[in-house]
Amino acid sequence: MALIVYSGGLDSTVLLHSLAAQGRADAALWIDYGQRHKKEYECAKFNCDKLGVKLDVADLSNLAPLFGANALTDKNTPVPEGDYAEDNMKTTVVPNRNMAMIAIAAARAIALNLDSVAYAAHAGDHALYPDCRPAFADALGEVLKLCHYRPIKLERPFINLDKGDIVKLGASLGVDFSKTWSCYNGATAPCGKCGTCLERRKAFEAAGIKDPLAWGA
Amino acid sequence: MALIVYSGGLDSTVLLHSLAAQGRADAALWIDYGQRHKKEYECAKFNCDKLGVKLDVADLSNLAPLFGANALTDKNTPVPEGDYAEDNMKTTVVPNRNMAMIAIAAARAIALNLDSVAYAAHAGDHALYPDCRPAFADALGEVLKLCHYRPIKLERPFINLDKGDIVKLGASLGVDFSKTWSCYNGATAPCGKCGTCLERRKAFEAAGIKDPLAWGA
Repeated sequence: MALIVYSGGLDSTVLLHSLAAQGRADAALWIDYGQRHKKEYECAKFNCDKLGVKLDVADLSNLAPLFGANALTDKNTPVPEGDYAEDNMKTTVVPNRNMAMIAIAAARAIALNLDSVAYAAHAGDHALYPDCRPAFADALGEVLKLCHYRPIKLERPFINLDKGDIVKLGASLGVDFSKTWSCYNGATAPCGKCGTCLERRKAFEAAGIKDPLAWGA
Repeated sequence: MALIVYSGGLDSTVLLHSLAAQGRADAALWIDYGQRHKKEYECAKFNCDKLGVKLDVADLSNLAPLFGANALTDKNTPVPEGDYAEDNMKTTVVPNRNMAMIAIAAARAIALNLDSVAYAAHAGDHALYPDCRPAFADALGEVLKLCHYRPIKLERPFINLDKGDIVKLGASLGVDFSKTWSCYNGATAPCGKCGTCLERRKAFEAAGIKDPLAWGA
């Protein structure tokens, strides 16, 4: 039985629905690491309520000053525009974010007597982010096997899917994509210019599905 | 150059002094995981001020409710008495605490442009705590090698020392043991009954050194 690390973004919302369809979505954890906005939380809450999954919040927002200058947690660092190939996207790296998130998710899974932590790592994750690389995730999985009296499994069911595949899977599971948030900015509508907006657009195009979220100018 | 995970307890205070003597104590991080008391923090602040090491605090106290019932972070769970062999000491296990602490320490080390995280794991650590076992720490070390663009080293310089050896080393480095705190309870003087008090007493006896902290009744 699994705890899902759930951001309220596109990928993890499809993961939540996928595990719920298998009867394995026991709990979800939303991690506040000092993001600039809380649009993703609103989406996470909506989807968990819809599926009857309890959503806990791990509030790490106090830690933001420790993480240094980056565009996701430091309000003085601008959100870069353009795709992930560009060097300026390095400012969106929150140091060691995934290790911290998985560590706390595993702690919560242990407290809830669950045996698995699932997250939505996928084949399109960028080498730009050291903590999205498969070798890193494999090493994390080894740690979780040993972190308690019984092994905790680290599941990455989307590891062989790209983002277009995830959109297709989400559509087949009846995901309401208007209740998923990707944009790094927190305006009423997605900006359409940041790396995650561009990536989301490509994913919907690849899947041949219309994104219900309106684009900004 | 190293960041030290620093609790203000006996072992990590000796580690701080040891790395400072080598000119490698660049930063220290005290982690508030919702401990019942802050006596250790007072000791940590004293020693860092003395040695001129900047001490940051990572405040995880918000997370305590996620960690479930345990004697260290849940005020409704009593602190057990007796030594670590006893099964009731399991209530002092904070789930996956060391992984969360090392993850956040590594994030801070990256933000400070350091290349190493050091902590005071030692040969006397108890198999009672899954996250003190050497295989677990080895796996954590592999994760840290991969968590950033450059490897972060996980140092455990005391891994072959027992607690008596650590007291001897501390004495040779001029550590003021009255400014180290071990007891799980936060009274004026150590209780003398909890597992960590009993262990501290044995360590000083083994080293043939008098503990300057007065014992409770």
